[in-house]
Amino acid sequence: MSKDGSSGGGLPGSLPVGFADIEAACGHIRGAIEDTVCDSSRTLSEMFGAEIWLKRENLQFTGSFKERGALNRLLALAEEERRKGVIAMSAGNHAQGVAYHAQRLGIPAFIVMPEPTPTVKVENTRGHGATVILKGTQLEEAAEFAHAHGRETGLTFVHPYDDALVIAGQGTIAIEMLREVPDLDVLIVPIGGGGLISGMAIAAKSIRPDIEVIGVQARLYPSMHNAVHGGELPMRGDTLAEGIAVKSPGKVTTPLVRQFVDDIVLVSEVQLERAVSLLIGIEKTVVEGAGAAGLAAMIAQSERFKGRKVGLVLCGGNIDTRLLASVLTRELARQGCLTQLTIDIPDRPGQLAAVSKAIADAEANVVEVYHQRVFTDLPAKGAELHVVIETRDREHLHRVIEALGKCGYDDISAKGAPE
Amino acid sequence: MSKDGSSGGGLPGSLPVGFADIEAACGHIRGAIEDTVCDSSRTLSEMFGAEIWLKRENLQFTGSFKERGALNRLLALAEEERRKGVIAMSAGNHAQGVAYHAQRLGIPAFIVMPEPTPTVKVENTRGHGATVILKGTQLEEAAEFAHAHGRETGLTFVHPYDDALVIAGQGTIAIEMLREVPDLDVLIVPIGGGGLISGMAIAAKSIRPDIEVIGVQARLYPSMHNAVHGGELPMRGDTLAEGIAVKSPGKVTTPLVRQFVDDIVLVSEVQLERAVSLLIGIEKTVVEGAGAAGLAAMIAQSERFKGRKVGLVLCGGNIDTRLLASVLTRELARQGCLTQLTIDIPDRPGQLAAVSKAIADAEANVVEVYHQRVFTDLPAKGAELHVVIETRDREHLHRVIEALGKCGYDDISAKGAPE
Repeated sequence: MSKDGSSGGGLPGSLPVGFADIEAACGHIRGAIEDTVCDSSRTLSEMFGAEIWLKRENLQFTGSFKERGALNRLLALAEEERRKGVIAMSAGNHAQGVAYHAQRLGIPAFIVMPEPTPTVKVENTRGHGATVILKGTQLEEAAEFAHAHGRETGLTFVHPYDDALVIAGQGTIAIEMLREVPDLDVLIVPIGGGGLISGMAIAAKSIRPDIEVIGVQARLYPSMHNAVHGGELPMRGDTLAEGIAVKSPGKVTTPLVRQFVDDIVLVSEVQLERAVSLLIGIEKTVVEGAGAAGLAAMIAQSERFKGRKVGLVLCGGNIDTRLLASVLTRELARQGCLTQLTIDIPDRPGQLAAVSKAIADAEANVVEVYHQRVFTDLPAKGAELHVVIETRDREHLHRVIEALGKCGYDDISAKGAPE
Repeated sequence: MSKDGSSGGGLPGSLPVGFADIEAACGHIRGAIEDTVCDSSRTLSEMFGAEIWLKRENLQFTGSFKERGALNRLLALAEEERRKGVIAMSAGNHAQGVAYHAQRLGIPAFIVMPEPTPTVKVENTRGHGATVILKGTQLEEAAEFAHAHGRETGLTFVHPYDDALVIAGQGTIAIEMLREVPDLDVLIVPIGGGGLISGMAIAAKSIRPDIEVIGVQARLYPSMHNAVHGGELPMRGDTLAEGIAVKSPGKVTTPLVRQFVDDIVLVSEVQLERAVSLLIGIEKTVVEGAGAAGLAAMIAQSERFKGRKVGLVLCGGNIDTRLLASVLTRELARQGCLTQLTIDIPDRPGQLAAVSKAIADAEANVVEVYHQRVFTDLPAKGAELHVVIETRDREHLHRVIEALGKCGYDDISAKGAPE
């Protein structure tokens, strides 16, 4: 993506958000927002042949960077607006960011969430003193209601990304990162609505015009990618990175992305899952799918970043534990540590005992087992035995299969999680 | 446990490890060991009604505090000893701590591990340049071999805990914590062999004689508890906190624990699992079972710590991902988010469809399902349907069961994970 003359003003003066706004935001939010750690990961750096720096926005009090923009917006309210209060629509990180800082500042906050929002999220948001309004079954319905209700009742709507003050608030992350590591070659930043990357790109390129800023989206939700490239890649399905699964990118942010962002990388679900697992295993830190998107981009295009100094924003850590458990388990299956074996056996007594013994002797652990007699291509006297086993690694798995072969079970198919 | 005059000398001068040794260790290891963050958790503090500070030793390069003692020991080697090299026995954190720092210092390191050690751990240790020797099927056998082999070949044995220099190295954590938070009321420290708590207790009580130091062991492995109380609580089973599942406490450490540790709390597996889950969910940080033991002690005896300023050592983060996934999933089951329902149904067509529809209408998700016709107490025309469902929380679960009841399925039993 090259700089595009048609995208509304090349001069900082004509931009909706300038570097001065972001510097001002730094001053405003100071003390109320964590200046989170930005440290290098030795092990990830070795793995990727790059120098990788991680900005740990997953350690903000409400678990994501969204507090920055929300707080910067709230601080700009006029006295009368403060008194009346604010309204926002979000079932996620923006909700908590607005609710928490509104409460701190004594501003009434109303958060509209779709009706099927998990009670935990509703309660977390209520816990920060906000009034939660459950409305609609989809985000779109809830957003529409929030806008309308805000207008009727005189509440100020706090947009999650399409607002100059919110963008300026998010941009403060780039200032902190470049203060810590002034010679970063490239920033990799997740894109949902585009608020985070717009602010960060403006700040970073004002400080270091030669820095590269690369966006990341989930391949299942390439909305900003479509918007800036005029493409029509489909948007569908449940991505692990639901925090950046935004259908329509912002009116304010899209031209900024077109102007200041050098490229957008699309990442697969497997890459997102692997990135979450790596950050757990190596960095002992918990990120949500969107928070892992930067590392996923390095997995997707590792050659591109070799030998460079790369800054990643771990933008959020609010991942559902059941999702996290499933991501970790699937990654084990991909590594050959958890495998479903389908073994053709003659249908007569003693087979299960013999198979179990062979597996046990090879020091693998049986997790699940079932017989299949009816729905199989085998002759009537045959049967299929499905066994899920745990092994230490792929090499161990192969030894188990070999051991079964030596016991006469040589018609085996092994199935891990899809790559 | 009160101070016991019989436990060998009350005067610092007669102790195997004095405060001066620990202060010296601070100087020796500085720069090569992370001075890890010690920060307060606002959310955990609110939950427990105490002021909770977390010392994040899980963020050491090799994922645990063990580096401190290992490095302090290595630095004290004579020139000739350095040249010959060291040997240690460990399948876990001590192995990595020794291997990593030996490599840094150019000291040959041999690590003995039991034969069934996961290849990942073997490879991690080899990755730090150590020679791994796989020997024996149990830790005891491996330890015996390491001692003998070390004697024969002139290698210095680096004990994981029963060594004054190792104890002094671990004690540096208390100095760092009290520098950060001088007015902590109590330290809660996991006990395996007793090296960590011995060093920390000596340091802490030298700086602040009135501070309380409380140890934690898994109820399944109360070895130090038995040693200091002369008890005979059984030791058995696989605890989540395998890092502190040490059968025989140290000869050096036991008298130190008797003298300087105020109490030992025993924690259950459920408390350990809950603590791991809380640190993931709230602090976004990954700890192994032993690393969660301090928080588990607060769960076990929450009244005791109310209103106090408590320092916890998250001593390690090296947890197997499959174990972590299972801990998270079981915790969800305990919270009523994942439940096995057993529903009595008449054995005729349409029942599964009707049950599925009722569950779907109540917005729960079916994860697993199977019919049970043969092995049931029901009349021949009846059957049992087992369904595992995901719900948002316990209240949602009750609504699903209610909805099934309204459809005529009122003989339902629900089973989560055991409390």
